[in-house]
Amino acid sequence: MTAWQIVEDGFDPVLANTNETLFTTGNGYLGTRGALEEGHEGALPGTFLRGVFDHHDCAVIDLVKAPDWVALEIVVNGVRLDVTTASVVRHRRVLDMREGSLSRETVFSDSEGRRTRVETIRFVSSADEHLCCLRARITPENHTASIDVHSGIDATRHNLDRRPFYPEPPPADPQMKWHKWAKSRHLDEVARTGFADGVYLETRTIGTGITIGYAACTTVSAPVEPEIAQRYKQIEQVSRLRVAAGETISVEKLVTIYTSRDVAAENVGRTARDELRRHRDTGFTACQERNRAAWAARWADSDVTIDGDTDATRMVRFSIYELLIAANASDQRVNIGANALTGERYRGHAFWDTEVFMLPFFIYTQPETARALLLYRYHTLDGARQNARETGFRGARYAWESADTGVEETPKWTIDGTHRIWMGEEEIHITSAVAYGLVAYVAATGDHALMTDFGAEILFETSRFWADRLEATPDGRYVLSRVVGPDEFHEHVDNNAYTNYLVRWHLQQAARVYAELSDSNARELKALSERIGLTRDEVEDWLDKAEQTRLPAVTDDGVIEQFDGYFELATLPVEHDDNDMPMYPPGHHHYNLAGTKLLKQADVVMLTYVLPDEFSDEAKLANYEYYEPLTLHKSSLSPATHSIMSIEVGDPGRAVQYFRRAASVDLVDNQGNTEEGIHIASAGGTWQMLVNGFGGFRVRNGQMTFKPWLPPDWKAIAFRLKWHGNALSVSANHTAATFVLSAPEGHRETILVHGREVVLPADTEVVVRLD
Amino acid sequence: MTAWQIVEDGFDPVLANTNETLFTTGNGYLGTRGALEEGHEGALPGTFLRGVFDHHDCAVIDLVKAPDWVALEIVVNGVRLDVTTASVVRHRRVLDMREGSLSRETVFSDSEGRRTRVETIRFVSSADEHLCCLRARITPENHTASIDVHSGIDATRHNLDRRPFYPEPPPADPQMKWHKWAKSRHLDEVARTGFADGVYLETRTIGTGITIGYAACTTVSAPVEPEIAQRYKQIEQVSRLRVAAGETISVEKLVTIYTSRDVAAENVGRTARDELRRHRDTGFTACQERNRAAWAARWADSDVTIDGDTDATRMVRFSIYELLIAANASDQRVNIGANALTGERYRGHAFWDTEVFMLPFFIYTQPETARALLLYRYHTLDGARQNARETGFRGARYAWESADTGVEETPKWTIDGTHRIWMGEEEIHITSAVAYGLVAYVAATGDHALMTDFGAEILFETSRFWADRLEATPDGRYVLSRVVGPDEFHEHVDNNAYTNYLVRWHLQQAARVYAELSDSNARELKALSERIGLTRDEVEDWLDKAEQTRLPAVTDDGVIEQFDGYFELATLPVEHDDNDMPMYPPGHHHYNLAGTKLLKQADVVMLTYVLPDEFSDEAKLANYEYYEPLTLHKSSLSPATHSIMSIEVGDPGRAVQYFRRAASVDLVDNQGNTEEGIHIASAGGTWQMLVNGFGGFRVRNGQMTFKPWLPPDWKAIAFRLKWHGNALSVSANHTAATFVLSAPEGHRETILVHGREVVLPADTEVVVRLD
Repeated sequence: MTAWQIVEDGFDPVLANTNETLFTTGNGYLGTRGALEEGHEGALPGTFLRGVFDHHDCAVIDLVKAPDWVALEIVVNGVRLDVTTASVVRHRRVLDMREGSLSRETVFSDSEGRRTRVETIRFVSSADEHLCCLRARITPENHTASIDVHSGIDATRHNLDRRPFYPEPPPADPQMKWHKWAKSRHLDEVARTGFADGVYLETRTIGTGITIGYAACTTVSAPVEPEIAQRYKQIEQVSRLRVAAGETISVEKLVTIYTSRDVAAENVGRTARDELRRHRDTGFTACQERNRAAWAARWADSDVTIDGDTDATRMVRFSIYELLIAANASDQRVNIGANALTGERYRGHAFWDTEVFMLPFFIYTQPETARALLLYRYHTLDGARQNARETGFRGARYAWESADTGVEETPKWTIDGTHRIWMGEEEIHITSAVAYGLVAYVAATGDHALMTDFGAEILFETSRFWADRLEATPDGRYVLSRVVGPDEFHEHVDNNAYTNYLVRWHLQQAARVYAELSDSNARELKALSERIGLTRDEVEDWLDKAEQTRLPAVTDDGVIEQFDGYFELATLPVEHDDNDMPMYPPGHHHYNLAGTKLLKQADVVMLTYVLPDEFSDEAKLANYEYYEPLTLHKSSLSPATHSIMSIEVGDPGRAVQYFRRAASVDLVDNQGNTEEGIHIASAGGTWQMLVNGFGGFRVRNGQMTFKPWLPPDWKAIAFRLKWHGNALSVSANHTAATFVLSAPEGHRETILVHGREVVLPADTEVVVRLD
Repeated sequence: MTAWQIVEDGFDPVLANTNETLFTTGNGYLGTRGALEEGHEGALPGTFLRGVFDHHDCAVIDLVKAPDWVALEIVVNGVRLDVTTASVVRHRRVLDMREGSLSRETVFSDSEGRRTRVETIRFVSSADEHLCCLRARITPENHTASIDVHSGIDATRHNLDRRPFYPEPPPADPQMKWHKWAKSRHLDEVARTGFADGVYLETRTIGTGITIGYAACTTVSAPVEPEIAQRYKQIEQVSRLRVAAGETISVEKLVTIYTSRDVAAENVGRTARDELRRHRDTGFTACQERNRAAWAARWADSDVTIDGDTDATRMVRFSIYELLIAANASDQRVNIGANALTGERYRGHAFWDTEVFMLPFFIYTQPETARALLLYRYHTLDGARQNARETGFRGARYAWESADTGVEETPKWTIDGTHRIWMGEEEIHITSAVAYGLVAYVAATGDHALMTDFGAEILFETSRFWADRLEATPDGRYVLSRVVGPDEFHEHVDNNAYTNYLVRWHLQQAARVYAELSDSNARELKALSERIGLTRDEVEDWLDKAEQTRLPAVTDDGVIEQFDGYFELATLPVEHDDNDMPMYPPGHHHYNLAGTKLLKQADVVMLTYVLPDEFSDEAKLANYEYYEPLTLHKSSLSPATHSIMSIEVGDPGRAVQYFRRAASVDLVDNQGNTEEGIHIASAGGTWQMLVNGFGGFRVRNGQMTFKPWLPPDWKAIAFRLKWHGNALSVSANHTAATFVLSAPEGHRETILVHGREVVLPADTEVVVRLD
């Protein structure tokens, strides 16, 4: 197993759903879980198309489980080749992250000892986002076989509507796991037809009216005429073959997918079939080559390596792979759901995870994708306005859970109706996360046009919300009561440090941008101000309120109180599990820790990370040392922040432990729910741990700065950054850091390395000794 | 549509599940819901084998949804013929109750206008309870077709584990209805093989270890060699045919089913295959003829007709049909679940419904089956002993919900954990229902051996329970506190009239039987007494306690108080719906009526029906008139009792209305849940309405008595009764009743008709004028 591969050896029903998640292939337009082509009992297959949401027949809007394009059924002498009907002699699958493909070799045996080998490879093309490809090679090893190959499109998939297991525990039986959930229906069939050399299936989402068309053609390396077969919402080509012992037949399946989000609804079918014909004419191998080339380009910008630790490199690459298949630059009206396009947990909804955890990766390695993600916030600004209005405030408040329109999608109750969910109302710091992403993007890219054309309106409308949401006190100060910070153990708190600091910063940034635009883009600013009724007085009011926003108490030691009254809460001892990770105290769980100091995840520590210029090194250290022992890391977002800050404060004893925890959250399933989807924010956090943590990269005062620190076992790390349209290659070992700037001739960039200025000329290797 | 037929015209997805229930075919050994052979989206198919329970993977023990033997898939030119994939030109199904068969004609059309007619007929043999038969005729009407016929066994069925819909309403979408329930797994596959001319599938229940074997062979009227196909837990024969336009091919499928409840586990497969071969050698038509003959014999003993009302005859016949397919005489270790073998609601559990509502039908028309049902109570006596012991009492207490062992299976909580269910602890009147059934059976059949060999032990052990359960008061009387009577609106009540009267009667019957056996079977009684440690003193104690059992207060008008304090409860006005049936008062539902006088179902009225000798005509009238307006009939058991008693008390104004309500509960689905199974107790109540209500039949002092009364619109009714091994044919019109006794020559029977003695010689028509 190389550092480019994730491998499954043998078929284990207990691990099967987790591996379906890990083996997702995708391209940002769609993601397809790595279910076996023929399925298995207990399988949780799924293809998700970005932006295709529907609210029919479910409690909360869903990212729709779209039809399955992978479906390939091989029947040998009447026996369907699947892990239940036949026996598995050998089984191995490999996810090749370098080229985004999933390959497989399974040898099946029937009850009479007839062995048949099935090898497949599949990918969702990164060269053409509407194209999916699958090739199978079938070899009857020791017998002459009648082989029927069924290859088609299956629209019988349903989203799951999770219901509580109480009073029973969830089923351990892997076959039954998903039978215990209710299912929702989102798709009506519109058309199902065979055409020359292929099949076409069109469905439409019932609530949102999105048309989805799949065209598929399958060719077989034998002179047979495939038949068309139809059942329920499935249509397929069936090839009936006679294959001699030891001979191999090859089956190539190409599928194109279009929706009415891409082309007009009435053109979906024609476009899908036309494009399919075009790809078929070039052939499977050409499609594969184009996909490889596209992946090579992506990796050239995004790869990170750890010399001396293949496992760690694989973990980081897996995180990057997941980020690369989660989004691309071609759609400004979608964001990344909490499980990206790998599963239906969180129903495809986007959270603050995008801006705070994932966006840095995109800003510094795929800035066009970062831009598209930020424009999603612009296109959902009306939804954010509605959220503010509906809670009685001016301006715009971004949704804690955001789907297609940006209106708040957080349910108010758990599905069993027993627990009130307050995040939609109280976890308002999401709105400042959007500003944080915008500002970071513009600083790194110099893309001021985005700020002028879109970002300013976001900053101004959200500042309006803050100015209205801040509550005046008799002493002329402003407070924020009844909020939830990143640490969700404590609801309805007043003056959460993270939130108040970010709000102050947010208002200041808005005023700064307003001032800058007054100088540089007065005409555009005037038009915008007229459109949204903004005056200079209002901007000054923001600055006043920022100035007067009450910040939390600070102890003599520099510890910031997480919220009003936090220091008075009970202290509970924390035990650690076998992996040295903290556990819930006996008798406690997430819902009854509000009276204690224990934290779900980094909160003040997070604050010192996201606003590095606002806190001294001493303050960062004091807060890290105070809060770290109180943090249970019951969110996959927490270890990454702690890893990074432990290095920054010079206490990196647990940095590697936290790194492994965050980087392997899905590969070893340490949250126990990877089967339902990737923890994509943790993937973003993993990249940040490498680049911002071990690489020590920060942007301070608009400048790139580096303070690399490597664990003793690692020889070197290497990563790439984009900066104002240029590319910087960075590597560091224990004694030196090496920089190569790719930029137009004559361009030079000044950076800080461990506080010292270093000038980087274009295309020149610069080695800086670390001491 | 004749009075022998139930018809479905056209396919309506909204009615489809209800019709699946109505079109169940069965024979007491198994029941198969009337799902379409090929299924439909939203189908709820099911085959249930009597006594095959399992407790794996579910909250409460389930009657297992066994493999499907009907599965027949017809693929014409690649298009699967089902109501979604093809269009339905014409569709009609007929349940022929006379011969227990379900026939069908459906014409499908594909998108190119190619029409194919499918005609099927199926039955579960009443001549051989292990045999199921299906014949299909397929005719491509206007095209020459490639037809693939898939015929096999499908073990992928799952029981549903009902979960609450709260906070959402249940789905209206018929496709999704059952997707909202969780599923339970009960079957492991043991073997799946093709053999000469057929296929065999063997499964085993996971919790209870019952082996289930299905052998199937399918023959086609064309010279093709069927192929075997296997997928997951399915195995089938596939016949690939070429059929000319207008030609008909015929497909005959025979299936045998055996379990390790029938033969030793290791012989299940061999027996199923051997028996299959035997049936196949005689052929489908011969199987059909034997089944018809068996049904003719059953109907000869059980038919009821209403001259002048075809609809009413059909309704009564449907009830009888359901009773005939619910049980047979060949298994003493099973009872009839609340939905018989037609659905999984109530999980196959038996209630008091059997003895009080259904047993009379069997006693008087199929006494061997009645005997088997009573022996189930004997074989579960150890379970009943355990129930008593576990609640701290001596003797035996029958379970409110009884499955395979007789231990209490009533869940203590609703599945969502929000409501406590008290029936298992408090609805103790079930135990006296068993005694009621025993005594009635022996009185009607003269089968004293059953009482000596089995019934006495039941009566004695249950009397022990009562003697211990009765609570002594300081005045030397005995009370029963904290019980629930038939009216379940009122829980934790003291001295429920129905319960206390029945307990007194029960103790008296036990003492009577003890005395009779002392005379007639002293040796057997001695052996039994020794075995269970019974003394004459204990029996005398029962009589004392019976004597001293406190009976409820009676008003000056003769109204019996339903339980202590009932008369003090609030009176709420009752509104009636469009069908003139009472509705819940606004703001009230079953769970908040305990403070009112309103009743779920007959309680005191029921009492005056089941113990007719204990109450005067005046008392019956007074109680009927008092309680009838307070009864909401929120149980399918209630209208039948009211119908019968309204006639007895001479106030039959609503008798026909109640009759139609009870008799059509499933045919018009007036409880709204027929889709989940037949209300089999209501079927028993319907037979009683005809025979005991309109026929006015009672057994008083060991003698048959009749007081016929007919609604003005009916011309005549006719029914049959078995009495001490002989058969009595009864018919009545508005002016006369006619009796024919089939008995050995010389035998004569004296009956009472409207209080007058009538002597019936054998085989002689006796006409009695009614005035």
